[in-house]
Amino acid sequence: MLLPVDELRQLAVTALERRGAPPKKAQLQADLLIEAELRGLPSHGVQRLPRLLARIDKGLADPRTEGERTWTRQGFAAVDGRRGLGPVVMMRALRELEDAVADCGIAVAAIRNANHIGMLAYYAEAAAAAGLIGIVFSTSEALVHPHGGSEAMLGTNPLAVGIPTEKEAFVLDLATSVVSMGKIHHHALCGEPIPPGWAVDAEGKPTRDAEAAKSGAIAPFGGAKGYGLGLAIELLVAALAGSDLAPDVRGTLDDEHPVNKGDVLVLIEPRAGAGSAATLTAYLSRLRTSRPADPERPVAVPGDGSRARRKKALSTGIKVPEPLFASLSALATA
Amino acid sequence: MLLPVDELRQLAVTALERRGAPPKKAQLQADLLIEAELRGLPSHGVQRLPRLLARIDKGLADPRTEGERTWTRQGFAAVDGRRGLGPVVMMRALRELEDAVADCGIAVAAIRNANHIGMLAYYAEAAAAAGLIGIVFSTSEALVHPHGGSEAMLGTNPLAVGIPTEKEAFVLDLATSVVSMGKIHHHALCGEPIPPGWAVDAEGKPTRDAEAAKSGAIAPFGGAKGYGLGLAIELLVAALAGSDLAPDVRGTLDDEHPVNKGDVLVLIEPRAGAGSAATLTAYLSRLRTSRPADPERPVAVPGDGSRARRKKALSTGIKVPEPLFASLSALATA
Repeated sequence: MLLPVDELRQLAVTALERRGAPPKKAQLQADLLIEAELRGLPSHGVQRLPRLLARIDKGLADPRTEGERTWTRQGFAAVDGRRGLGPVVMMRALRELEDAVADCGIAVAAIRNANHIGMLAYYAEAAAAAGLIGIVFSTSEALVHPHGGSEAMLGTNPLAVGIPTEKEAFVLDLATSVVSMGKIHHHALCGEPIPPGWAVDAEGKPTRDAEAAKSGAIAPFGGAKGYGLGLAIELLVAALAGSDLAPDVRGTLDDEHPVNKGDVLVLIEPRAGAGSAATLTAYLSRLRTSRPADPERPVAVPGDGSRARRKKALSTGIKVPEPLFASLSALATA
Repeated sequence: MLLPVDELRQLAVTALERRGAPPKKAQLQADLLIEAELRGLPSHGVQRLPRLLARIDKGLADPRTEGERTWTRQGFAAVDGRRGLGPVVMMRALRELEDAVADCGIAVAAIRNANHIGMLAYYAEAAAAAGLIGIVFSTSEALVHPHGGSEAMLGTNPLAVGIPTEKEAFVLDLATSVVSMGKIHHHALCGEPIPPGWAVDAEGKPTRDAEAAKSGAIAPFGGAKGYGLGLAIELLVAALAGSDLAPDVRGTLDDEHPVNKGDVLVLIEPRAGAGSAATLTAYLSRLRTSRPADPERPVAVPGDGSRARRKKALSTGIKVPEPLFASLSALATA
């Protein structure tokens, strides 16, 4: 079913408020999920809400706290999320980093014990909207096998980069797995085979059976290089946040365990450097009008697709499966 | 021919000193090239030296300067390399960043107008050896086509990450192209076809002809994701360093133009965070002993191969093509 954006947003806010989330925190958490829906990323949208609400009910998520920031250096905030909502802890850290970056030119928050921060682009965009470069890393449960390995040993370890330009910000947001576990679940639901190279089964054998892949491991993107990048993020986040490594991570895919993955947010002040936003914009135009591989499909810049989907969905509304809508409606009144 | 490491090193040092490089700067530049050779990366080794010497002769590289650092913020150094040698400018910036990172916990140098910095792992390792996390980005001439494009619009835009652990540092160093232009030149020299998906020709058509690929463009690694990452590095470096964008970059592959690519170095103080080096080491052991795809080939960690090759080459010596040795010998006496 197709729901007006505001109706879906209000449903999420109400469900969160009924569980003790103060209005602004409920709105922020709902906004993150709605923005993912608008960008065509339902795996990071409202389907995450029932589990989050269960986590609040069980005391695994505290909708009232913004976490605790300890400034161990002038530009380094060690953040204990204290089981807070991911976007609430992240956005509070981002706002405080803005002050540090004014002095240092670059600043970092290393966050543990915060719930799922969802779509990373959200924070990269927020940084860029404040005129800053934002780089975000996050870790997760073990879902990805090493290049040359056949066992889930790494998280999907996404990264996002937001860079202000003269026009809309450049926003990159990618997982270091070749595909999301959400997409594999979707193939399993539809009874469709997955493409070769996506995953191995529980015994470590390459498989095209989506159901078998669910208990196996996803490949890193881009072979050895993507594996190296995902591993660097795994180590970087654990080194700075003191969070757990993938095989021991719990709490973003269940409602039984405290969350122990980590998140890292770096902000940089471009005005401290020698570049110009106008130069970036001119280059991106040149890139978009460069010779495409297929004359029918112009070269795109990361974020172009998201922006187009968002614009369309704002007027058409958001598609939500009926059982999910029923469940959300019940949770907003229960 | 196989040369003892010290003989090759001395040859490089002498050639540089004869062109006015002070001993320590000559040694540093030579060390960077030798370390690349030891790791089995001849494309970043002494074959780069004749061009660099020509650049010195023509005034395009100044072997005496360490560049000029302007601290625009407490943790942000805007560096004008003043045509200095890449490793000389980089290592000076790295040493000064070490002071800034003690206060800020994170610090960045944005560098323009420095000659080719060579193998990025060198600086990531130097950071890790100082107990710091090092992240390095660099840009280059346009050699890579966008995903969905067919024209060289991006640099090979490498990145390196060095993270101290309890044992040897984790060191990742990768270009965001699927392969280096050096490897394509090598295939052309040997008259071998290149694998499908590596490159397009000057008209933008996919090609397996290495000779045709030389005037075309290399693919980004990992499709849209690798393209996105390379583009983020392209923009990040230009935004911070004020360097040129790939289609306008000159000076690392020729001896006619001043260099106008950029380099970015970020240092982070892990002791400001909540992680522990021992945890990282334990995880890396677990990763190496996890189930391999091929029972004969254990799972590797980025840097393992380089370390093994380096160890071997230190005793066997470095393989140098005879014409290159002849040319280096002439340059060391001319």
